[in-house]
Amino acid sequence: MIKTADHLYLQVADKIEQMIEKDVMKMGEKLPSVRMLSKQQGISLTTAFQAYYHLEGKGLIESRPKSGYYICRNIRRMAPMPGTCAPVRKPVSDVTVSDMVMEVFSHITNDNILKFSVATLPVSVLPAAKMAKAVIHTMRDQGPGGIGYEPLQGNELLRNQIARLSLGWGEVYTADDVVTTHGCMDALTLCLTATTQPGDTIALESPSYYGALQLAEGLGLKVLEVPTNPITGVDLDYLDKAIPRHKIKACLFVTNFNNPLGCCMPDKHKQELVKIVEKYDIALIEDDIYGDLYFGKQRPLTCKTFDTQGNVLLCNSLSKSVAPGYRVGWTMPGKYKEKVLRLKHHHAISCTSLTHAAAGHFLEIGRYDFHLRNLRKMLHTQSLRYAQAICEYFPESARVTRPQGGCVLWVELEDHINTFELFQQTLKHKIAFCPGRLFSLQNRYNNCLRISYGNPWSKQVDDGLKTIGKLIHKMQ
Amino acid sequence: MIKTADHLYLQVADKIEQMIEKDVMKMGEKLPSVRMLSKQQGISLTTAFQAYYHLEGKGLIESRPKSGYYICRNIRRMAPMPGTCAPVRKPVSDVTVSDMVMEVFSHITNDNILKFSVATLPVSVLPAAKMAKAVIHTMRDQGPGGIGYEPLQGNELLRNQIARLSLGWGEVYTADDVVTTHGCMDALTLCLTATTQPGDTIALESPSYYGALQLAEGLGLKVLEVPTNPITGVDLDYLDKAIPRHKIKACLFVTNFNNPLGCCMPDKHKQELVKIVEKYDIALIEDDIYGDLYFGKQRPLTCKTFDTQGNVLLCNSLSKSVAPGYRVGWTMPGKYKEKVLRLKHHHAISCTSLTHAAAGHFLEIGRYDFHLRNLRKMLHTQSLRYAQAICEYFPESARVTRPQGGCVLWVELEDHINTFELFQQTLKHKIAFCPGRLFSLQNRYNNCLRISYGNPWSKQVDDGLKTIGKLIHKMQ
Repeated sequence: MIKTADHLYLQVADKIEQMIEKDVMKMGEKLPSVRMLSKQQGISLTTAFQAYYHLEGKGLIESRPKSGYYICRNIRRMAPMPGTCAPVRKPVSDVTVSDMVMEVFSHITNDNILKFSVATLPVSVLPAAKMAKAVIHTMRDQGPGGIGYEPLQGNELLRNQIARLSLGWGEVYTADDVVTTHGCMDALTLCLTATTQPGDTIALESPSYYGALQLAEGLGLKVLEVPTNPITGVDLDYLDKAIPRHKIKACLFVTNFNNPLGCCMPDKHKQELVKIVEKYDIALIEDDIYGDLYFGKQRPLTCKTFDTQGNVLLCNSLSKSVAPGYRVGWTMPGKYKEKVLRLKHHHAISCTSLTHAAAGHFLEIGRYDFHLRNLRKMLHTQSLRYAQAICEYFPESARVTRPQGGCVLWVELEDHINTFELFQQTLKHKIAFCPGRLFSLQNRYNNCLRISYGNPWSKQVDDGLKTIGKLIHKMQ
Repeated sequence: MIKTADHLYLQVADKIEQMIEKDVMKMGEKLPSVRMLSKQQGISLTTAFQAYYHLEGKGLIESRPKSGYYICRNIRRMAPMPGTCAPVRKPVSDVTVSDMVMEVFSHITNDNILKFSVATLPVSVLPAAKMAKAVIHTMRDQGPGGIGYEPLQGNELLRNQIARLSLGWGEVYTADDVVTTHGCMDALTLCLTATTQPGDTIALESPSYYGALQLAEGLGLKVLEVPTNPITGVDLDYLDKAIPRHKIKACLFVTNFNNPLGCCMPDKHKQELVKIVEKYDIALIEDDIYGDLYFGKQRPLTCKTFDTQGNVLLCNSLSKSVAPGYRVGWTMPGKYKEKVLRLKHHHAISCTSLTHAAAGHFLEIGRYDFHLRNLRKMLHTQSLRYAQAICEYFPESARVTRPQGGCVLWVELEDHINTFELFQQTLKHKIAFCPGRLFSLQNRYNNCLRISYGNPWSKQVDDGLKTIGKLIHKMQ
């Protein structure tokens, strides 16, 4: 239900959207004129315009010159969702996809390539000017300007601001619960190292972020890939049995808008998951890096919210939404804090004082919420646009996820299509995406691909997806 | 020999210094007046003043009000040097000094404590304003101002500038040979991880930088501590036999102005060391972090200079001399480059783009050489001042190193004195140093301590050393 606090135009737009979804209004149908809508709904002309503008932004309707607005797409008619993958026989550690990852990402800084491969936002939508101001403030007003080391646990202001982000959660967290890191990968590295020994087994989602797989491999860990549903996340019944059977020492899950499936674990499942890790007293490393990029009304909770024993190590960063190059990440490592601090001392001594102090200042005064609100709207629109283009250009048999947050789509093609071969072909057209094979240590997901919709919609993006579609059709 | 290119005042000062050293001029003796010196040497009054001022800075002479200059100290009369430690029976991995390290460094950001414990320079002597300018330049002139990721191998300008630092070496290195890291510890972490497996044995100097010991422990490595001479460094004959006997996979040595002994391996030894690691085809991780802080006429070479097979992984950073908080480090990993790049990709994705770009700009235009020259002079003077104060205040039986670079002194007390107990006592007086026990995984060096002379000489420093001396006397 729409809350009355919402803008009037959103209420109207939402009504129309529901009618489209329920086929009350059909694809291709002309909508009432703006004047008519204003009269019907008893709203101003401006509000009526705003409502159509919003729906156009979402890609549901289009304006045709000298004619008016038409319904152009229906979300319900989108391609079906992929299913949950089958469980694996046993954890593995020997198969490596490292070469493939390096090949896919060797082009990462080549500006001539259209990159559907990176799950980050383009710098053009990041608050570069605000961050620059924060840096200048730090250099001018904070003693020797971030040139010296900071305390081992991290910049005090930044930690305090991070603690404040947990305001809506169940527990109250303070700066003392936070340890800063050089981005989220660094946090995951410290947390995994703190909670496991080489040779141990950990549980990951399947498909799973290739970065986590690579990291586990580098740390000499075995990985059990847990079946994961594209809507509800990890199969908890399976996990509950697997932990004792495979002597799992830690779980590393992206609970909100998981990469690559985009699934968001329902809060009830989160609570249940925490109970499971508490029962076996193992660590749950919760990668919440996409949590702030939700499309719904409210931010989803975290497992950390339900953590009473300190088994959850929450990891996050500002790399997705604010400044990837500033390397501002953190963990709230629960009862593993001392171990994490020690490892941070051994590996890094200190984070980058300047950018971390600047990030603290930005969070304090930079209207982070306001920035996020715009980013979310933009990403939501883009997710729909991209998904619809994929439905249009890819074969009908393609299955596509419908993420409610984050910045990636997961596409499943027919079994015989090898997306790594597809990748090598699209690269010749200067287009890159992530082949599905990267997302497992088992030999699976060869027929899948991950498409990031971080780049704003443009003709180039449209052409790029069209080209991928054509190449897939040729492989059918 | 003094080169004629040197300033006149330095030539005169050097002559006087030699006379003091050879006891031609004796401690307590009055020196010729400035006017007399000017006449004798045929130099201006200003030059004569400068010569005395220089000697005063070195702590060799002192001016007494209304009386003139007096010889106050003689370097030759300093305490004897510590000897080389005895070899150990076998490599160990189980003893941990981690708790002790955490206790010593828990006070690291407490400004009320006089810290002889940290081997870094105070921010007051670092080029904070120049670095701030470089940051502003980067934010203004470089596209989106360092907010995005940089290429995996690191900022191109920075890598190019780093390659230029090797100008004086035998081989020619380019930006392509350099991988940037978040400081030197991060470089050591990547290089050790790239060249070893958990359970392997590595060789370190003894005494050895506690950071390296902690890191090795964290990576599940066994450590063989190699006897090290306070002047010439690692015992190469011992090492040559130890590598096959203990199946050593990598050596991690601080070849120039080692921490804590301050020894600088002669260039001939470096060449020999490279031959040894080539013979067994193992990795030599060369930590050159103090190499630029030499007191002599020329920068010592590195083992990398003699590396023809790519077995040497050189590690360094700007943390000692420019900006610790900017986390600018690097490695030239030789034939291990691909492995190091992969690990960097898994652990961090990217370094801090902003500070790394700024560091590149600073090296390009910031008169780094000029800055270093002043820093070296300052450190040389401080090393003498600190050493002399230690001779004066500590018991006569104390042995003190005479480093020719870097920023730490190593002091050996009588066997029965436990410096960790001493540390706990000095801490009550708000004075911290590094107990010797931190520098070994064996139970040794309990009677030693490391004193950093990074802080400029002051009454507070003088009083601090006096207090430590008093407390040692009480323990005799």
